[in-house]
Amino acid sequence: MSDSPKLERGAWWGWGAGQDVAPLSAEVHGLLSERFGGLLAAPPSAVQPSQVHLPEARPVPGGMASDLDALLDRSSSERLRHSVGMSYPDLIRLRSGELDHAPDAVAFPRSIEQVESLVTECARLDVALVPFGGGTSVVGGVRPERGRHEAVVTIDLAGLRDVEVDTRSGIARMGPGLRGPDAEYELSRRGFTLGHFPQSFERASIGGFAATRSAGQASSGYGRFDDLVTSIEMASPTGTLRTIDTPHSAAGPSLRELVVGSEGALGVITSVGCKVKPAPDTERYEGWMAEDFAAGCEAVRHLAQSDSLPDVIRVSDRQETEVGLAMSSAAPGVKRFLERYLEFRGRGNGSLVICGWQGDRDAVRRRRRRTRIGLRTQGAVSLGSAPGRSWEHSRYGGPYLRDHLIESGVMVETLETAHTWSRLGELYERVADALRSNLGSSAIVMCHLSHAYEDGASLYFTFLAPVRPGDELETWARVKTAACDAIVATGGTITHHHAVGRDHSRWMHPEIGQVGLDALRAVKERIDPTGIMNPGALLPVES
Amino acid sequence: MSDSPKLERGAWWGWGAGQDVAPLSAEVHGLLSERFGGLLAAPPSAVQPSQVHLPEARPVPGGMASDLDALLDRSSSERLRHSVGMSYPDLIRLRSGELDHAPDAVAFPRSIEQVESLVTECARLDVALVPFGGGTSVVGGVRPERGRHEAVVTIDLAGLRDVEVDTRSGIARMGPGLRGPDAEYELSRRGFTLGHFPQSFERASIGGFAATRSAGQASSGYGRFDDLVTSIEMASPTGTLRTIDTPHSAAGPSLRELVVGSEGALGVITSVGCKVKPAPDTERYEGWMAEDFAAGCEAVRHLAQSDSLPDVIRVSDRQETEVGLAMSSAAPGVKRFLERYLEFRGRGNGSLVICGWQGDRDAVRRRRRRTRIGLRTQGAVSLGSAPGRSWEHSRYGGPYLRDHLIESGVMVETLETAHTWSRLGELYERVADALRSNLGSSAIVMCHLSHAYEDGASLYFTFLAPVRPGDELETWARVKTAACDAIVATGGTITHHHAVGRDHSRWMHPEIGQVGLDALRAVKERIDPTGIMNPGALLPVES
Repeated sequence: MSDSPKLERGAWWGWGAGQDVAPLSAEVHGLLSERFGGLLAAPPSAVQPSQVHLPEARPVPGGMASDLDALLDRSSSERLRHSVGMSYPDLIRLRSGELDHAPDAVAFPRSIEQVESLVTECARLDVALVPFGGGTSVVGGVRPERGRHEAVVTIDLAGLRDVEVDTRSGIARMGPGLRGPDAEYELSRRGFTLGHFPQSFERASIGGFAATRSAGQASSGYGRFDDLVTSIEMASPTGTLRTIDTPHSAAGPSLRELVVGSEGALGVITSVGCKVKPAPDTERYEGWMAEDFAAGCEAVRHLAQSDSLPDVIRVSDRQETEVGLAMSSAAPGVKRFLERYLEFRGRGNGSLVICGWQGDRDAVRRRRRRTRIGLRTQGAVSLGSAPGRSWEHSRYGGPYLRDHLIESGVMVETLETAHTWSRLGELYERVADALRSNLGSSAIVMCHLSHAYEDGASLYFTFLAPVRPGDELETWARVKTAACDAIVATGGTITHHHAVGRDHSRWMHPEIGQVGLDALRAVKERIDPTGIMNPGALLPVES
Repeated sequence: MSDSPKLERGAWWGWGAGQDVAPLSAEVHGLLSERFGGLLAAPPSAVQPSQVHLPEARPVPGGMASDLDALLDRSSSERLRHSVGMSYPDLIRLRSGELDHAPDAVAFPRSIEQVESLVTECARLDVALVPFGGGTSVVGGVRPERGRHEAVVTIDLAGLRDVEVDTRSGIARMGPGLRGPDAEYELSRRGFTLGHFPQSFERASIGGFAATRSAGQASSGYGRFDDLVTSIEMASPTGTLRTIDTPHSAAGPSLRELVVGSEGALGVITSVGCKVKPAPDTERYEGWMAEDFAAGCEAVRHLAQSDSLPDVIRVSDRQETEVGLAMSSAAPGVKRFLERYLEFRGRGNGSLVICGWQGDRDAVRRRRRRTRIGLRTQGAVSLGSAPGRSWEHSRYGGPYLRDHLIESGVMVETLETAHTWSRLGELYERVADALRSNLGSSAIVMCHLSHAYEDGASLYFTFLAPVRPGDELETWARVKTAACDAIVATGGTITHHHAVGRDHSRWMHPEIGQVGLDALRAVKERIDPTGIMNPGALLPVES
């Protein structure tokens, strides 16, 4: 692993890493033109980095201790690289060449002490600070807003990548800047895995997982990230908050749960202790077909409530199942055979279920057997391992695909929510309706159940629609608002694992109520009295 | 279930319910006199309720809305019944007839709306409010302190005992005043169990479990109470905080985890949503013998880290194992046989391990098999079901036994902590040393591992010592302080499941640090601006 505090971020204009990314397949092109037809306009070609117009940098106020000032990089390239996250509007703004936000400088600390000093010094000089891990926020979580402050500095935590493992307790203490693959590499060398694999895994960081309450694709097995955190440390303007190492405590409200999910609005997370598990020697992924989406969800509910969940569970609705089959890498002959088989088994319009297990061979065999019995009892039909392999192959592919779709003039966005089992169907219907009625009949609106619990599950929506060049941001805002309003009206959560950032902050009032907002604001005002920490993120601006 | 908001509380002078409680057995008497010998002085006999001297009641300020005023009971009997919790110092004070704290009145609301109105009205009239569920706090959590306020009213929540079950989602919404057995009765009628069985189960309430982050004896299987809570509602002086029904959310810090553990210092918990499981049709309890305490703990670590824990797991150290065998109800012949068998198997000075499983027959068989293989691999020897039955028989017996021991002039107290596996042995040694060196050589100091996790476990200490009548409180304070200092010095948590109350508030600073305290105080000051909620509980008084 490189020792540099400046890590690569993929392409400057999006997720992809240049030539490694395959262009859209003929199948996808066919699907899009069949669906969107003449509506698809070619978008303006992306500008070059040198053509991007960044807002003028304000000077960071003088008087910063010189050793800290030396950590600041004021170059346009770093300012650009830290100006946005990875949301659809972020990428549209990047490609348009007109950015309305950029940090005035980027700090690259190499130690916890330097982070603590930077936070204190920025508070003293009235400089806003935006913590930056992998920069993969899809909700505007890393947008550098100066607010009412003198300047805004993004603090890139890539220099903090230590890993220390307490093998007896199964706990790894990790630096916030450690990326997913590097964390897994360091842990696997010691025989462990963190087991946290969100779609952003390749780029996202440990600090970001903690700050946003991330959930990985294998969360049924390993737990969500907030389940994994055993202790956490955060540098705030009034000092460091550090929770002790204990598997459980009844010493008052959980401060760990106050720092987890705080999205940089209270301080900079400097160290995260996480439960780790023995590295698996076996992985199995396979596909099943349920009669329809409701039946697939019901099957998962039974698995969840009978201790039979696999580590990865995912149920696609009919639309996503169709698109998934159309886009899968299987040969046309195999696909035709599969279609006929499903027709024969009465699952021709079915709902694809993906299951995955990890662990030692015995555990995988034992647990897989339980899941399979449960699925069969619930009427699902096994498709064998091919769909599982296909899912595994493309599990981190979404963001690459998005780059290409945006290039083809398609608006593509995802959003996610969760509810109890008894209201999940209603949530699905209302959000899908809101999306369809706002996107028009040609849009592709699809959904999958992405994470399952004993008491409920999350829904992950993806939508694709043709969009007129220049209208992207306005259209996006209208559709996003309609979907979020529908979520809130059904009592679902505004976000299951993408976090609040700036895009969801308007819906924090229905989510947690006035007293909840008051409580969070009180904490922020006490430990960040001048409000320099990530202004505008998490909490809605008070009217 | 009676409809009355005034529930029985057992004996006024302690836990026991009068004639139902068996006196100390000859074995225990023998053990105590052998150990304590002539040091055991007969304590002064307990006074009669009418002889107890309560501090004079201050009138609740005039002007309370008449419908709310009608909910107040100012009788001496209710004031006495709500003057203390169930800690050793509480019981000593009760028996001495000299109480330095009592509520000026006790409110008996029957609805959430009445609770909300009472909280608002008390804030308006500057009346301190102490929430009271089962009144079983062993850390001074329900001690009515007037603080700087006009009067102090205890709010007894026994009138709020509704149960509503969402069977599809496996969620029960319960009133805070519902006691453990009543909750299980109501749930079992619908085919469910909460699975929360702390030693205080018979008397403690749902609201109290949530307010204190309780952990039940079967927590490895069902989870701690904070794992069970899906949503929660709290009436605070500035309004109601209500978390939404969602299995998970990334919408900022967890407010549910801020209310859970808040110990009445932020508001009154009015409703708790909890995960429930299908009622078990099978229960199995059995005993094993490990070579020593360290080996027993190590065996449990292996079980925890290989997904092989039973629902109940408990490992007694050598002292507790000896006392437990001496006190067990087995016939002398059986005991002698057991001793010889253990001698033969090299476990003569061993450490008793209790395991329990609940669930449907297949699940119990399957999971029990895994645990047994794990224990055998770790060198433990099976003792069969007799020790399990004996434990099951006495699982709620501790508080009854304590009444009798106090009557016999014995100081008896428990305390608990937790740490990661890698530091559990050190924590055990240091706390045991602190207790022994402060209690003198005749004291009985014993410990068991009471709750196990992948990353660590809790330790539960019990100590018995002769105490001179009149010296009880002073001796207790000295020993308690030494033990808590030892816990903090080792980095363990000051409480794993007893909560902070007033007895632990001094150690909140080392537990959560200055920034942590500032954060909690900020929340309290915002949502309880005049500080009427349970003054003195949870947060140390600022110096």
